Amino acid sequence: MNTPTHWPSWRLKLKTFIDDQRFQRFIITLILINAAVLGLLTDADIVAAWGELLHGLDAVILAVFVVEITLRLLVHRLAFFRDPWSVFDFLVVAIALVPATGPFEVLRALRVLRVLRLLTMVPSMRKVVAGMLRAIPGLGSVGAIMCIIFYVAAVMATNLFGERFPEWFGSLGASAYTLFQIMTLESWSMGIVRPVMEVYPHAWLFFLPFILIATFTVLNLLMAVIVNAVQEVQHSELEQTSQHITAKVDADTEFLQGELRAMRDEIKEIKGLLSTSKTPRG
Amino acid sequence: MNTPTHWPSWRLKLKTFIDDQRFQRFIITLILINAAVLGLLTDADIVAAWGELLHGLDAVILAVFVVEITLRLLVHRLAFFRDPWSVFDFLVVAIALVPATGPFEVLRALRVLRVLRLLTMVPSMRKVVAGMLRAIPGLGSVGAIMCIIFYVAAVMATNLFGERFPEWFGSLGASAYTLFQIMTLESWSMGIVRPVMEVYPHAWLFFLPFILIATFTVLNLLMAVIVNAVQEVQHSELEQTSQHITAKVDADTEFLQGELRAMRDEIKEIKGLLSTSKTPRG
Amino acid sequence: MNTPTHWPSWRLKLKTFIDDQRFQRFIITLILINAAVLGLLTDADIVAAWGELLHGLDAVILAVFVVEITLRLLVHRLAFFRDPWSVFDFLVVAIALVPATGPFEVLRALRVLRVLRLLTMVPSMRKVVAGMLRAIPGLGSVGAIMCIIFYVAAVMATNLFGERFPEWFGSLGASAYTLFQIMTLESWSMGIVRPVMEVYPHAWLFFLPFILIATFTVLNLLMAVIVNAVQEVQHSELEQTSQHITAKVDADTEFLQGELRAMRDEIKEIKGLLSTSKTPRG
Amino acid sequence: MNTPTHWPSWRLKLKTFIDDQRFQRFIITLILINAAVLGLLTDADIVAAWGELLHGLDAVILAVFVVEITLRLLVHRLAFFRDPWSVFDFLVVAIALVPATGPFEVLRALRVLRVLRLLTMVPSMRKVVAGMLRAIPGLGSVGAIMCIIFYVAAVMATNLFGERFPEWFGSLGASAYTLFQIMTLESWSMGIVRPVMEVYPHAWLFFLPFILIATFTVLNLLMAVIVNAVQEVQHSELEQTSQHITAKVDADTEFLQGELRAMRDEIKEIKGLLSTSKTPRG
Repeated sequence: MNTPTHWPSWRLKLKTFIDDQRFQRFIITLILINAAVLGLLTDADIVAAWGELLHGLDAVILAVFVVEITLRLLVHRLAFFRDPWSVFDFLVVAIALVPATGPFEVLRALRVLRVLRLLTMVPSMRKVVAGMLRAIPGLGSVGAIMCIIFYVAAVMATNLFGERFPEWFGSLGASAYTLFQIMTLESWSMGIVRPVMEVYPHAWLFFLPFILIATFTVLNLLMAVIVNAVQEVQHSELEQTSQHITAKVDADTEFLQGELRAMRDEIKEIKGLLSTSKTPRG
Repeated sequence: MNTPTHWPSWRLKLKTFIDDQRFQRFIITLILINAAVLGLLTDADIVAAWGELLHGLDAVILAVFVVEITLRLLVHRLAFFRDPWSVFDFLVVAIALVPATGPFEVLRALRVLRVLRLLTMVPSMRKVVAGMLRAIPGLGSVGAIMCIIFYVAAVMATNLFGERFPEWFGSLGASAYTLFQIMTLESWSMGIVRPVMEVYPHAWLFFLPFILIATFTVLNLLMAVIVNAVQEVQHSELEQTSQHITAKVDADTEFLQGELRAMRDEIKEIKGLLSTSKTPRG
Repeated sequence: MNTPTHWPSWRLKLKTFIDDQRFQRFIITLILINAAVLGLLTDADIVAAWGELLHGLDAVILAVFVVEITLRLLVHRLAFFRDPWSVFDFLVVAIALVPATGPFEVLRALRVLRVLRLLTMVPSMRKVVAGMLRAIPGLGSVGAIMCIIFYVAAVMATNLFGERFPEWFGSLGASAYTLFQIMTLESWSMGIVRPVMEVYPHAWLFFLPFILIATFTVLNLLMAVIVNAVQEVQHSELEQTSQHITAKVDADTEFLQGELRAMRDEIKEIKGLLSTSKTPRG
Repeated sequence: MNTPTHWPSWRLKLKTFIDDQRFQRFIITLILINAAVLGLLTDADIVAAWGELLHGLDAVILAVFVVEITLRLLVHRLAFFRDPWSVFDFLVVAIALVPATGPFEVLRALRVLRVLRLLTMVPSMRKVVAGMLRAIPGLGSVGAIMCIIFYVAAVMATNLFGERFPEWFGSLGASAYTLFQIMTLESWSMGIVRPVMEVYPHAWLFFLPFILIATFTVLNLLMAVIVNAVQEVQHSELEQTSQHITAKVDADTEFLQGELRAMRDEIKEIKGLLSTSKTPRG
């Protein structure tokens, strides 16, 4: 984000402050302390002895994070929400501010997502995560095919086995979950397909093709990732080699050109000699 | 499919109509609606409340598909069946027309296969599926070896363990299924091999080599797919690099040739000078 | 195998006969029939009805195989045993001749290994199998490391857990089998490690490192195979590209050389002109 | 390690002795014998019959190892500890010298780690192990991300499910172990998630994303290893090809240069002719 020159000076100063590496390191340290605090809070004995201190520390750190995000919002304003990393920081801090009572009690567990800010604050990790996320769009079309296969298989499984095995195939959601389990090959046979085959002896005609198609599609996903990565590496390697060779070809050509130039100079000299030898006699 | 000029005008008009992108989008929309309808029909509560409407909608959409396939048949006639994508469309629609009663009741569950028409109708998906299918022939010979290994192992397992473990190895089919389960490593030891070893302590002499050979063969299948994909990518990358380098070499050669031409012209001039300077004196 | 000229004519004729493609196809057909017969013999009902016929057919086919191997032995003599494919054919036929009674009854189940002769007789399969076997030596050193890791882990597991869990870790063999199961990740936690941890709460300090090391070593095995295959493909692709480029460079050089030759001829002509124009005057 | 010339002669002689291949082979033989002895000691029957002999043999071999390490320490002194392989040798021998009584009884099982000295003593294995270890730093940043994901997921799981499922999610350690099991896909659904979902029906909202993220991260780890290996191979292949091509280009350029030199000589000759033909007339 470039800093426009027409900003008021307080905004520029604030930007310098929050972009300062010391401030960043301070926040990273707080995240690490917060991670430790949230870890210690999972132990009932420690909570009994130090609970108040730890909860206090957690509240203080959260307050600092709120201030930090507010400062970044003051500086970047709406541009803040155009940076996906900032939006992530905003969300994981915002979660902690929602009162975690009644139906939202589950949100209390999401407080620890704040620790994931390490991935957005430490530059080297941010780079690796960005690399991993970049691989995802390439998976898009195979992923869409996967979804269609899952949907079709879930509808079929619900129609075929839902009545007799309501726990596994009673609804579209239950079927999708069970089929996901089967795709990971977890207890697919002893746990699911053999019991189903006791009622429907031909059930393997549905499940074996599903396993083969699903694993083949996953293999294609995996392959797409590997091939992309290999291609990227290869492209830059080939680029370098190509540059090296063409540079060599150019150097050699230049060398020959030098030789030719020298020769041409001599030929010109000869022409000069001939012209002068001719002119006086002309 | 090219359009022969000798077709009657109604056939040409019909072709224009069914090839129109708006018509294609209309069919894709119907497939998506049909997918939702078939999904909703798996929920007993929804069927109780809206069943008639949903079944009616399903019937209407099926009717449109029948008309669509009929139109395509009228246009392309026998050529229709030479296009595997068309044959797939034909089959998944035809399934719905078979009366799903008595022994054919299971066909009712196959109605949802119609949703797979998304893979044949959306061009970008069709491309990915075609790419995945192209990878299959390369797997042919390893697949054949896999079948032979499975057949031999199934016959052996049936002979060795069929009598005492009829549920797992009672017939060739049961053995093949159990061996497939073992190959996927699902409960192979706790579920199958440990119980078998309680009766036949040396059973591991059969199962461990089977696992090693089967997984090694699958690894070879997987490798064939990856290596093929890498090779394809590599080939085109190298082609490009090669073209880039040879173009550079050609450009440099042409440049040198230009220099040479210029020099030759000068030499010719010299020769002219010499000839003229000689002739008058000759 | 080349045919020495000093062989007696009956041996040469015999060689022509067994190398004839029609004879090979006849043997392949017999193997396929034998495979079907051995498959049918696993079904008790079919054996009850057709058992005698099928056993007769099996015996006849076995006799033909014995004759075939004998003929090949007569032709190639000791050289027969230098070809590993022939040795394989010999062994799988020889197994059937050992009387399968008493302690050797298990050999009866090995009769079906004869069907694997398909892999040695059909040329295209033989090629694929040879390719797969070629990948094995490259795995040698990683395989040896795997064996050492397994041996060390098995001794440790037997010492640590053997007393309390004799079924899983009672002996070196039992431990090695259980560790192999754990390496395949089959029921490693719910089936083995959780029960062990109830007695030895720190058992995970042994099992988790074992799983990480074992799977990392397997990953290295797998990687060695993939990298080898990619390298092989790459080498030939680069060879071709390199040849293509150097051919282009040579062609361009030759072209420039032609230009230079032409120029040199003209220069020689000029020299000639100069010499003749000079000599008379000299 | 180079041998400084100022060492006293006894130190130089000792170095020659311990670096001698015959001494190395003697140690490797002892390691193999020790491996066999430690293996035999796991069998209660053999221990009953030959226990004293085997224990004696083990003690003798250990003594030789102690002497060997002492000699190496005498020769290399502190430099010994700069070589990680030597440190490994030192540690696995030192473990055996700690009195394995009371709380240290578990150390007795670690004696067998001595057999891993095969990996440090046999040069070919040392090379492969070094290659495998070299791949690890490249995994660093993805590994760190993995740790953060595990920590966050373990804290969340402990908070969410710890109360009702203390055995699986009762503490941070228990949760991390269970999540590792889930990541290996062992019994994740039938063993853990389905029981959890009976109490918390929406638990899949936590576990399915965890499985997808964890396996995707492992896939990235695996990919990093494969891509690195492919790149290394590729780099050296391309280097060779590039050298081959540039050598060819150089040779062709040199050839053309030779032609040009010859031509230039002739041109110089012409110039000479012209000068001499001109001068007398000038």
